[in-house]
Amino acid sequence: MAKPGDLVEVITKNKTYKGILMPKPEILKSNTIVIKLNSGYNIGIDKKNIKKIKVIKKAKKKKARRKKIKQNKKLPTVSILSTGGTISSKVDYTTGGTYASLTAEDFVELEPKILKFANIRAKQVLQIMSEDVNPDDWVKLAKEVYKELNKKDVSGVVITHGTDTLHYTAAMLSFMFPKLSKPIVLVGAQRSTDRGSSDTFMNLICSVIAATQRIGEVMVCMHATPNDDFCYLHRGTKVRKMHTSRRDAFRSINQFPIAKVFPDGRIEILIDYKKLDGKNELDTKIDKKVALVYIYPGMNPKIIDYYIKQRYHGIILMGTGLGHIPTTGKDSLILKIRSAIKKGIAVCITSQCLYGRTHEFVYSNLRKLENTGAIFCEDMLPEVAYVKLMHVLGKTKKLDKVKELMKKNMTGEINPSLSPKVFLV
Amino acid sequence: MAKPGDLVEVITKNKTYKGILMPKPEILKSNTIVIKLNSGYNIGIDKKNIKKIKVIKKAKKKKARRKKIKQNKKLPTVSILSTGGTISSKVDYTTGGTYASLTAEDFVELEPKILKFANIRAKQVLQIMSEDVNPDDWVKLAKEVYKELNKKDVSGVVITHGTDTLHYTAAMLSFMFPKLSKPIVLVGAQRSTDRGSSDTFMNLICSVIAATQRIGEVMVCMHATPNDDFCYLHRGTKVRKMHTSRRDAFRSINQFPIAKVFPDGRIEILIDYKKLDGKNELDTKIDKKVALVYIYPGMNPKIIDYYIKQRYHGIILMGTGLGHIPTTGKDSLILKIRSAIKKGIAVCITSQCLYGRTHEFVYSNLRKLENTGAIFCEDMLPEVAYVKLMHVLGKTKKLDKVKELMKKNMTGEINPSLSPKVFLV
Repeated sequence: MAKPGDLVEVITKNKTYKGILMPKPEILKSNTIVIKLNSGYNIGIDKKNIKKIKVIKKAKKKKARRKKIKQNKKLPTVSILSTGGTISSKVDYTTGGTYASLTAEDFVELEPKILKFANIRAKQVLQIMSEDVNPDDWVKLAKEVYKELNKKDVSGVVITHGTDTLHYTAAMLSFMFPKLSKPIVLVGAQRSTDRGSSDTFMNLICSVIAATQRIGEVMVCMHATPNDDFCYLHRGTKVRKMHTSRRDAFRSINQFPIAKVFPDGRIEILIDYKKLDGKNELDTKIDKKVALVYIYPGMNPKIIDYYIKQRYHGIILMGTGLGHIPTTGKDSLILKIRSAIKKGIAVCITSQCLYGRTHEFVYSNLRKLENTGAIFCEDMLPEVAYVKLMHVLGKTKKLDKVKELMKKNMTGEINPSLSPKVFLV
Repeated sequence: MAKPGDLVEVITKNKTYKGILMPKPEILKSNTIVIKLNSGYNIGIDKKNIKKIKVIKKAKKKKARRKKIKQNKKLPTVSILSTGGTISSKVDYTTGGTYASLTAEDFVELEPKILKFANIRAKQVLQIMSEDVNPDDWVKLAKEVYKELNKKDVSGVVITHGTDTLHYTAAMLSFMFPKLSKPIVLVGAQRSTDRGSSDTFMNLICSVIAATQRIGEVMVCMHATPNDDFCYLHRGTKVRKMHTSRRDAFRSINQFPIAKVFPDGRIEILIDYKKLDGKNELDTKIDKKVALVYIYPGMNPKIIDYYIKQRYHGIILMGTGLGHIPTTGKDSLILKIRSAIKKGIAVCITSQCLYGRTHEFVYSNLRKLENTGAIFCEDMLPEVAYVKLMHVLGKTKKLDKVKELMKKNMTGEINPSLSPKVFLV
């Protein structure tokens, strides 16, 4: 009798399928079985079409407790903090999906080659999929990272994280650590380890290599191409998930990546980066009353009244083009924004184009918007402006000071000029 | 005495600047003058540093009324409907910015070469910058387009439009015209005609050429590269403005462009397209009670209550990754969505990654979301899903019917599978 986890051959009238038998997801009818094909995809097969199910290999029993990892005194030590996400996902045999499960120690077992580059210290600090990460988790994580950074024998910190909001976390940590004596490298995976095409292994090795470098930045380490050739090290404030499923989904926006990292240990630096500071500085004071609002034709300007009523302190608008918002009508968005700013709310302008720079002086409508007191966020990504405003409002609520700080390049989030070569790469 | 519009040489202590004297923008101090350099950029110069201002060439007086355009009976006729935007912008000598001003007839004067490819009929139907376009304008525009399409001697329609929301309009027209006997081509410009690098001229020629083709689609015609070599013809439901200022800002997403169009009249078809129908069909019934909401860590789930209270009929969520939203907490977003759907509101899921496809079955959290009745919008762009839901709710409010229509490929907005080559091109 075949059990979930077994490798099976399902023989139907027309075709034979080979794969891992999955537990039945609750959403499917009871007359369907699901197997995970070698490609990593699951298919459902109607029981009435099945002639026979042959068990080819029984599911492995859980392994005995693994032996302790030996320390190599010649190598630096990297601290891996795990938070959940696909990079620490296994198949969930109650739903047939994947879920967060591996503890930090498992990473060494997952990819023993990381021990060629560093001794590994590991700790699980959160256990959530990244869509569920919230600002309190950022604070908790930052404090755990700070502890690791201050350990004398640790050379750098790797954070394993779900990919969906990995770039939000990377940006927030970039602001929370104005000074870094060691690198912080966030890493995730787009495909879980039970899939042949999993990016977990190479991403993990490259992130450990990156965490041994003398770079004083918060970075994101992910596949650079669809192949297993190398990873990019992206600046934490200049990176975004640009594809739902590709392994090379993370792209630097308005910026080249900091470096290429090869799984054999080579590093190729591509741009200037921040050198290490003598010490670590942590600033976790944030203001959570900030909203991120998408602008579109036909949107209801009253949404701004809602945020005023809910006593928000900041709003990031994702405007169109150079930072436009609708300006016409007696109850227009621009008038709502003027009154929000008059009430002391910081309103900042980014662009839903994502690439390029906002600009307050090109068109009359932009000047009108700037005249309301809205803060144009240069070439900052909307998500980065969002976490930065939380950080800035944690320091001051005075709008002129907020503007000064939002316009100031704190940690590489603003480029004075953009190379024409950084579009869609 | 130099006047706005004059070509001047401004001699300062250290340097001499040459450019067009601009009227002083109200936001600048009165001791500053502004000139537009040859590069197209404006610079401000402090009066106290100026030694002398030399007038090199006085501003041209307005030309006399232009002569009537001759008809060439061998050529097809293209109807240009102008709506405003940078493509019909001139410098505004009261603010020093640019504003919408040209009437449709001016386009022929602007670029006489378009008469090599078609006789031009022209009409101004709107006069707004595209950030101010709203759903009522879409209806008005569609009706004007319909009139032109039904004229026997017209081969195709070109719509000149501001670029900020050009892709929203293109998508909406794609749904409003389920049948087309002639092509509709939207065109814009990223740089106004007073700049040396203006893309107006080539975009205009290529759009006229495109409007003479036998393609039954709503398309967007814009610069394909940073050079003046050719334009892309993008499918109206698969295109997005991806850069605030580049001339090649418009990119096809999850899809190759339909064709390359060269300013000498050549066309290179890249993918299958819809052939012409025997007649035109117009359906302008839309439901404007639809919202587009960006998802982010820390967002307040109560925003959904707001849309319920405001009696919205549909919400498009821009989820993270494959279409995730936060699921944890006793007052979580997923619970709010469940109650919105129970109240008959259509909730649809797209991805803020923009590239790739949403997927309801990969992770447990996605299955939970699908179980609420949320509709996953395949590989549709968020903006396209937004206008499509307006269109669909104009036909039916029944959620099972809404789901069926949202999941159905109506006009090329959904691809059954994505080529790996369509990422970031």
